[in-house]
Amino acid sequence: MTSKLLSRRDLDFVLYELLDAQALTARPRFADHSRDTFEAALDLSESVATDFFAPHNRKSDENEPTFDGDKVTLIPEVGTALKAFVDVVLMAAEHDYEYGGMQLPLTIAKACFAYFKAANVGTAAYPFLTIGNANLLLEHGTPEQIDTYVRPMLAGRWFGTMCLSEPQAGSSLSDIRTRAESRPDGSYRLFGNKMWISGGEHDLTENIVHLVLAKIPGSPPGVKGISLFVCPKRLVKADGSPGERNDVVLAGLNHKMGYRGTTNTLLNFGEGKFRPGGEAGAVAYLVGEANRGLACMFHMMNEARIGVGLGAVMLGYAGYLQSLDYARHRPQGRHPANKNPADPQVPLIEHADIRRMLLAQKAYVEGALTLNLYCARLVDDQKTAPEEGVRSEAGLLLDLLTPIAKSWPSQWCLEANSLAIQIHGGYGYTRDYPVEQYYRDNRLNPIHEGTHGIQGLDLLGRKVVQQGGAAFKLLGREIEKICKEAASSRDTVMFARALGEAAARAGLTTDKLYAAGNLDKTLANASVYLEMFGHVVIAWIWLKQAVVAAKALADGKGEEAFYRGKLQAAGFFFRYELPKTVQWCELLQSLDTTTLDMKDAWF
Amino acid sequence: MTSKLLSRRDLDFVLYELLDAQALTARPRFADHSRDTFEAALDLSESVATDFFAPHNRKSDENEPTFDGDKVTLIPEVGTALKAFVDVVLMAAEHDYEYGGMQLPLTIAKACFAYFKAANVGTAAYPFLTIGNANLLLEHGTPEQIDTYVRPMLAGRWFGTMCLSEPQAGSSLSDIRTRAESRPDGSYRLFGNKMWISGGEHDLTENIVHLVLAKIPGSPPGVKGISLFVCPKRLVKADGSPGERNDVVLAGLNHKMGYRGTTNTLLNFGEGKFRPGGEAGAVAYLVGEANRGLACMFHMMNEARIGVGLGAVMLGYAGYLQSLDYARHRPQGRHPANKNPADPQVPLIEHADIRRMLLAQKAYVEGALTLNLYCARLVDDQKTAPEEGVRSEAGLLLDLLTPIAKSWPSQWCLEANSLAIQIHGGYGYTRDYPVEQYYRDNRLNPIHEGTHGIQGLDLLGRKVVQQGGAAFKLLGREIEKICKEAASSRDTVMFARALGEAAARAGLTTDKLYAAGNLDKTLANASVYLEMFGHVVIAWIWLKQAVVAAKALADGKGEEAFYRGKLQAAGFFFRYELPKTVQWCELLQSLDTTTLDMKDAWF
Repeated sequence: MTSKLLSRRDLDFVLYELLDAQALTARPRFADHSRDTFEAALDLSESVATDFFAPHNRKSDENEPTFDGDKVTLIPEVGTALKAFVDVVLMAAEHDYEYGGMQLPLTIAKACFAYFKAANVGTAAYPFLTIGNANLLLEHGTPEQIDTYVRPMLAGRWFGTMCLSEPQAGSSLSDIRTRAESRPDGSYRLFGNKMWISGGEHDLTENIVHLVLAKIPGSPPGVKGISLFVCPKRLVKADGSPGERNDVVLAGLNHKMGYRGTTNTLLNFGEGKFRPGGEAGAVAYLVGEANRGLACMFHMMNEARIGVGLGAVMLGYAGYLQSLDYARHRPQGRHPANKNPADPQVPLIEHADIRRMLLAQKAYVEGALTLNLYCARLVDDQKTAPEEGVRSEAGLLLDLLTPIAKSWPSQWCLEANSLAIQIHGGYGYTRDYPVEQYYRDNRLNPIHEGTHGIQGLDLLGRKVVQQGGAAFKLLGREIEKICKEAASSRDTVMFARALGEAAARAGLTTDKLYAAGNLDKTLANASVYLEMFGHVVIAWIWLKQAVVAAKALADGKGEEAFYRGKLQAAGFFFRYELPKTVQWCELLQSLDTTTLDMKDAWF
Repeated sequence: MTSKLLSRRDLDFVLYELLDAQALTARPRFADHSRDTFEAALDLSESVATDFFAPHNRKSDENEPTFDGDKVTLIPEVGTALKAFVDVVLMAAEHDYEYGGMQLPLTIAKACFAYFKAANVGTAAYPFLTIGNANLLLEHGTPEQIDTYVRPMLAGRWFGTMCLSEPQAGSSLSDIRTRAESRPDGSYRLFGNKMWISGGEHDLTENIVHLVLAKIPGSPPGVKGISLFVCPKRLVKADGSPGERNDVVLAGLNHKMGYRGTTNTLLNFGEGKFRPGGEAGAVAYLVGEANRGLACMFHMMNEARIGVGLGAVMLGYAGYLQSLDYARHRPQGRHPANKNPADPQVPLIEHADIRRMLLAQKAYVEGALTLNLYCARLVDDQKTAPEEGVRSEAGLLLDLLTPIAKSWPSQWCLEANSLAIQIHGGYGYTRDYPVEQYYRDNRLNPIHEGTHGIQGLDLLGRKVVQQGGAAFKLLGREIEKICKEAASSRDTVMFARALGEAAARAGLTTDKLYAAGNLDKTLANASVYLEMFGHVVIAWIWLKQAVVAAKALADGKGEEAFYRGKLQAAGFFFRYELPKTVQWCELLQSLDTTTLDMKDAWF
């Protein structure tokens, strides 16, 4: 087994050779930074992840959080690891100096976080949820809310959660029932149940800051009547320290197939166990405007979804490196044409089918990592590019790519985990090797933070058509640009042609779907569209990588093996994967109604 | 949650409307049987599986077998369930009256077993391994070996195992090292280690009969020097009862991701813990001829592989029924075109994407069940058809279809399990619902009993070309036959055309692969070939079902919903799945060398 979590060479390739992260240091916000400070942050992340997060990944899985009716217990290594994370200021890696942060570009911060997700996705969830929570409050909270809640979160003294789903309303937020009653002092009291709340209860920190979606009685029905509230586990005293217990009570833990290190909870708000201030209900405060809660939440959705996607990528990446190591060291069998059993066995990696499974993993995980860091770069551009045009284009492209950045790794890096198991044979199916846990952990990702089906509807029903298809057209121009560059090298010209055709096919398909003139019909196969679109996007990302690699080879920059590997993985994706889009497009263009016509009674 | 394990209506459709199982009662071997006796066996199986196997499926998963260094402990429900199975003579369902059997056709026996696999694949493994062991001894053992070992196994007093793999030799049996030293009395002494031995140790029965592959010193290297031995845990006394402990010792249990109810072991033979007869080595007896062990083993491989395939099918089937039940009862969201949040939520099954996931599962699991029972029917024909031509053709087709019957369900019914989880949303990821266990259990199936990669090599490297491609041509004629029938109905004519084209493409692809004139190149993408071929086979199986359904509808036989469902699932397979073969064939025909050209250093 290898202790390597991620290929640093690959990461450097993406960050510096492809995304030109160094150029960000020219912007005022990042003026104190340099490639050296980036490297230092990455080195630190790798070492904290390796030393504190990876060692208890299996132990967390085997000893999931327990609840004795009063208190949740986690293995002590989780607290130790999170303390190490907080001590090196990674909680505020991307945040302003004003909040004690490092003011790193998100591109670099996400690259740092990648190590933690690879090392221990369960433990890493606590700080990442907290960061998401803090970012939402930074965007929509009052200065007082920021001082009260964000500062202790970014200092790592408190953690945060996101409370959206309810037992009767998972994907359909429109149907949440948690009630927020206003009080004369401007505060609210919450009553209701929230389901699937990660990090909802623990003793890791002295307080937990819940962000809760709820409805104020009299608000419009559906999503237009949802408001956002901040609701701490312990009320905050005037001096900023945690005081009286609020009426947010753990009703139970969910016991999952994987991702077991992360406490996942059902929380009751205002059930009456505590009566803060002698009154019923969990004390909460409105964040932003009333009835605009979902819009606030969506504001953070892009980053949250990229975060989930990156988690899926890193589980895939970690499994890829494990299976590569195994394939290099395990002797098994001989080449098909060699019938001499007296010859020694060859390592697994010598077999074409094993190499197919390794190449597929490489194509999936390196493609998806690049896409996710590209999206982080778009966030940086959206927030800090000097030109308004660059900022708005970055936002546009980000909106379009987010469903892919979330869903594609959730599907294909999970498939990578399955291939990693397969390469290990029977050993991969045992708990003595890490790959089976990656596979179980990763199966969560197509479900939470918007299921696959929801991402498909978001992409086809909204993103590709919003602003008259502006984002879609922008992606088309980006694809054209890289195709033009790629056309000048013998190594990439065929890829450029294939991508151009695929992009044209995707455009035609979108048009035909909307020509149906019936929304139910247009969206019936939105999940297939999501898969198709995702493959086109990843082909584009691979072409970007291939162009850089081909140029490096042409320039004789050395490291030939590394760049050849990039071209070969690109070749794999273009030959084995991209052609799948032909069939998906044909199906979509036919406006097939097999699923719509199917009747309940026919099953 | 539903307690339904399998749709009896569907099973009846396959057995009687498609496979004409009743016709088997005309053969002398099955003369005592009738549809009534078949029904009785199926009813009995359903009730024993439901009452004794299903209830502890989750408990077995949560309480896997333990080993205290001396003794293996299983939860008591396993023993109770197996006693119930044995008491109703299911252990010998397919066997001769002479051995206390029911002499049921294998088609019916496998349908009976399907219930147990759906109910509890971990507990069901013990008798099914025993049956496989017994069948091998019945075929190759001496009358004395049959009396000594087979009778107590079929009576359920002893269980059996298959000991092939070793820690250093998984897929490559050529490299096993277990040594069999001959003794003057004609017996042998075994020395070596066997890995992945299911049912290798337990206290469920008073004895365990191991069938072991080993090498006699001086034998040829490789597979031509492998012999088969029977080696009981306890030596058998003259009166047939178990006596002195043999030197087969449990070295450790494997701890798996799923399939946890089945003890999986590393066994040491002849390590010296016991000295039977005062001498070193585990006492064993040659089965069949020396150096012909692998041939003996392969003789049983078809049935063992169909058995594994059927296990994969039934895990998929059970998950399908669970997700169907969930989708019918869980309200969530509204149709895309309905923007009124005041309207009540609709059940999940109303959503097109949920129906897509249900239809996909239906297409996978009903297709695969039909294929596996079709293969069982071929075994019946091979053994009992009155005409020699029918017998030999059945054997030929069976050889060709076996890699598909094993691998296709292992891949696609696992995918069905993933879809079943997805339909359940977050709940599906918890251990409160059964689908996550099915997914973990099913992940074993692409690994054991010949990995996916091995099945691909078996199919492309051997089965499609053996006897001048006779089996392949036979399948072609079968496909032509059903296409002709299908052409006469409006419901099926398009499917017939698509299948005809796909079959022609598969033939052309095979030719082009062999035209490479280089075995390594021909076989480089054998796994892709396996997938492609599998989809063609399942399309053929679906066309068979569609033809029966279309005819039933045309004849106004009633049960319109059932038959419409069959046609719709067939339509799903032909529209969503079969077109994938176009891209796979193109890749194969290009004799792509991406994987062969990839170098270790490039990863």
